[in-house]
Amino acid sequence: MKLLEPFDLGGMRLANRIVLPAMVTRLSGEDGFVNKDIIERYVRFAKGEPGLIVLEAMAVHEAKSGPLLRIGHDRYLPGLTGLRRAVQEAGDVKVIPQIIHFLKISRSGWRQKITDLSREEIHAVTGHYAAAAGRARAAGFDGVELHMAHAYTLSSFLSRRNNRLDEYGRSLENRLRLPTELIAAVRAEVGEEFPVGVRFDAEECIKDGYTVSDAARIALRMARAGASYLSLSAGGKFEDAIHKPGDPLYPYTGYSGDRCMPASNYPDGANVYMAEAVKRHLTAHGCPTPVVATGKIRTPELAERLLDSGVADLIGMARALLADPDWPRKLREGRQDSIIHCIYGNVCKNLDENFKKVRCVLWPKGALQAPESGDAEGPGWTLGREFLATAEAGRVHLYWKQATDNEDVYGYEILRGEDGAGASHITTVKGCSYNDYDIEAGVRYTYWIQAYDLAGNRSEKLGPRDVTLPYPDAARERLERAAATRTEGRVP
Amino acid sequence: MKLLEPFDLGGMRLANRIVLPAMVTRLSGEDGFVNKDIIERYVRFAKGEPGLIVLEAMAVHEAKSGPLLRIGHDRYLPGLTGLRRAVQEAGDVKVIPQIIHFLKISRSGWRQKITDLSREEIHAVTGHYAAAAGRARAAGFDGVELHMAHAYTLSSFLSRRNNRLDEYGRSLENRLRLPTELIAAVRAEVGEEFPVGVRFDAEECIKDGYTVSDAARIALRMARAGASYLSLSAGGKFEDAIHKPGDPLYPYTGYSGDRCMPASNYPDGANVYMAEAVKRHLTAHGCPTPVVATGKIRTPELAERLLDSGVADLIGMARALLADPDWPRKLREGRQDSIIHCIYGNVCKNLDENFKKVRCVLWPKGALQAPESGDAEGPGWTLGREFLATAEAGRVHLYWKQATDNEDVYGYEILRGEDGAGASHITTVKGCSYNDYDIEAGVRYTYWIQAYDLAGNRSEKLGPRDVTLPYPDAARERLERAAATRTEGRVP
Repeated sequence: MKLLEPFDLGGMRLANRIVLPAMVTRLSGEDGFVNKDIIERYVRFAKGEPGLIVLEAMAVHEAKSGPLLRIGHDRYLPGLTGLRRAVQEAGDVKVIPQIIHFLKISRSGWRQKITDLSREEIHAVTGHYAAAAGRARAAGFDGVELHMAHAYTLSSFLSRRNNRLDEYGRSLENRLRLPTELIAAVRAEVGEEFPVGVRFDAEECIKDGYTVSDAARIALRMARAGASYLSLSAGGKFEDAIHKPGDPLYPYTGYSGDRCMPASNYPDGANVYMAEAVKRHLTAHGCPTPVVATGKIRTPELAERLLDSGVADLIGMARALLADPDWPRKLREGRQDSIIHCIYGNVCKNLDENFKKVRCVLWPKGALQAPESGDAEGPGWTLGREFLATAEAGRVHLYWKQATDNEDVYGYEILRGEDGAGASHITTVKGCSYNDYDIEAGVRYTYWIQAYDLAGNRSEKLGPRDVTLPYPDAARERLERAAATRTEGRVP
Repeated sequence: MKLLEPFDLGGMRLANRIVLPAMVTRLSGEDGFVNKDIIERYVRFAKGEPGLIVLEAMAVHEAKSGPLLRIGHDRYLPGLTGLRRAVQEAGDVKVIPQIIHFLKISRSGWRQKITDLSREEIHAVTGHYAAAAGRARAAGFDGVELHMAHAYTLSSFLSRRNNRLDEYGRSLENRLRLPTELIAAVRAEVGEEFPVGVRFDAEECIKDGYTVSDAARIALRMARAGASYLSLSAGGKFEDAIHKPGDPLYPYTGYSGDRCMPASNYPDGANVYMAEAVKRHLTAHGCPTPVVATGKIRTPELAERLLDSGVADLIGMARALLADPDWPRKLREGRQDSIIHCIYGNVCKNLDENFKKVRCVLWPKGALQAPESGDAEGPGWTLGREFLATAEAGRVHLYWKQATDNEDVYGYEILRGEDGAGASHITTVKGCSYNDYDIEAGVRYTYWIQAYDLAGNRSEKLGPRDVTLPYPDAARERLERAAATRTEGRVP
């Protein structure tokens, strides 16, 4: 499949088309130096064999912040070089740092805005990025990614809400000015051969923000200015962030944060239309620069469809790889059925928001990294195959017996079919019960439970158990009649 | 074209497939009675010949509010009957009221929530809707539309944020309970033959809100419970509304308000993907209930494409018909080129937000209704054909001489082409100058100005004028080279 084929990304040969986008870990200290936890996190990712690992954002300047990696001074180089080497040695993977500039925020809720910046300060941002890109190259990274997304400095310049009155604001061209100058400066620093990616919002998802209409044009400019690839994100802005008194404002707490990391309420590939619009514009202008699509792309089938149809060149998966770093490797080895699936519950996002070390809620309790196991034996139902599914109070309650495993039972997947149509994974839990609230009356739900172990080996399925909620009394007859009467309609 | 063909909507024969969705006018008094301004507004719409006019929301209960039509008591019947008759007599158009229940809000920012309602109060909502639907029938309307969208009571029950702990909350089925009971009660009141539409949000567009995943299922339930059609809206919620101290909270002021009425920063048909998801689900379940798609569908071409592909059965146009009520008639008469185009500047939305009478910013100053004119003579450039287009400070400044007309010059359309590709309407102004901020360097923009009169007759075009902004100095050479190098890419 195309997803597993090599790809030439601006000179980097990726072993496959799966990209780990930059994801906050909060594993680093406030000193900004690489530490053991950080190395272990990325080595773990590397073992899973994504084509490209983009390291979490590291600051290009020496501004105060919470736990955050740094690349704003040569003293960070030895640590970064060590991290780079460890990751490269762990697998056939390319590794690049994402570099970021951000403005000041305070616990009062105050934040510095781009309108507060003098021209000198703006030019300094360019200088910081260029120097940091140079350090990325010096540390031996395979490239560098410029963070221009979310709530940070460059994204605020690109924003449709950029209301600076000088040549850096208001019109689209003026909003593009700093990002354009910055890529030029980075290129001047690292040369033409070093891959330089740009990550930016394909939609701001805030009131009066820009949409794909602008994003398509931003993408083309960034490509022509020298970007080797365009990695699309969405939202994650300060404008709708929810201020928790006493904490600095955190930009993923509002609606735009939801759109950045679409949770279980969103359909798969919720942001794919953005990649489509961007790619269409690039193609119409004869621009071959690759696009990384992201946003709840969780199945090989969807990923492949996007690659096949040309909507994207590379597939970014953050939460899916956090849940199971071995997703790419398992796919390559034909062991897709042992992938541990992200449930898009965004506990990782909440940890980040609360300045806690980011882990996956599915991982074993207390673990700081995804488990590793070469075990081949799956769990079994030695304690009994009892499995109850009951409808009450407008929800379905599931209860089952614990499974056992030679190593450890990792979790229980809940599979559900509707009206006889095939089972799909609806969520995963660690305990032995679950309330399904995502149900409607009149549909025959069929449930199965499947336990899995640390390696992702599955147990036999418990089930099927069928449950149907009754229609509300007031409309029961009509609804039953209507459900029985199917009219042939057009397929849109 | 399909758009102009008749359509059977649950027994109503519509002359065409253009629907005027309910739109606040703020023309009524606080007494809730129909007045002269209201009648004139809808008669004006009727003369333009949409297939269906949905009157602005009227309250089913006697709760306090600002200016709002009412249908919560028989004393409103004579006025409503008169309004109905006047609209029906004005053209071959069907007319139905949208009926609404809302909870209390106060100027302090406080608002009553659905968790505050007792079961008795919930049942009373059902009773109010049923009685109001009965009054709609008694007044001779062609049908009735149940408002279940935006920030109002029924939408709050449907909301994914409905956290009632009883049988009316939390699970999807429980969220569907009140809307289901309510349609049953309305059907019991008005019988099977009276068209009953449901308007609801196809996406809440708020943090933790529902998306098309739920909307598809809501649609199917509403259809099976007895809805004659489903009219899709989006957003417009209290949860992200911006509170203006001293004013009651108004639900279109936040991001979800933007998504409800997508402005010029959104692409055409911004919400079409929602109709597509809903229609796909209905079709898969053999449900033929028609779907009205809305959200910046402004051209006959887009409307026709949606009908042809089966993404929608009817096309809702609110702001486009406010700007030019004669849009449907002009299209039918082959006078599409005299349509006055909405600029999606949302001045109408702002008037509504500020509790002012809603009019279109394009209308002549002070006019309370769209102008009418049978004149056939267009404006001319008798005062000179001077037309300047200059690029400076990252924007394009346009200036031209005033046009003259035998009646009155209504406005100046600004048309723009990019790199030689055909002209499209970018906005309309009333004065003789315009700053275009929506521009990027390196693109050759070609501008034309076209004046039009009250009937929409166009003048000759002024222009073309070509302008190209220079690239930023820092990247000029590279950008020029890149723009000149077009690589053949795939078309997604």
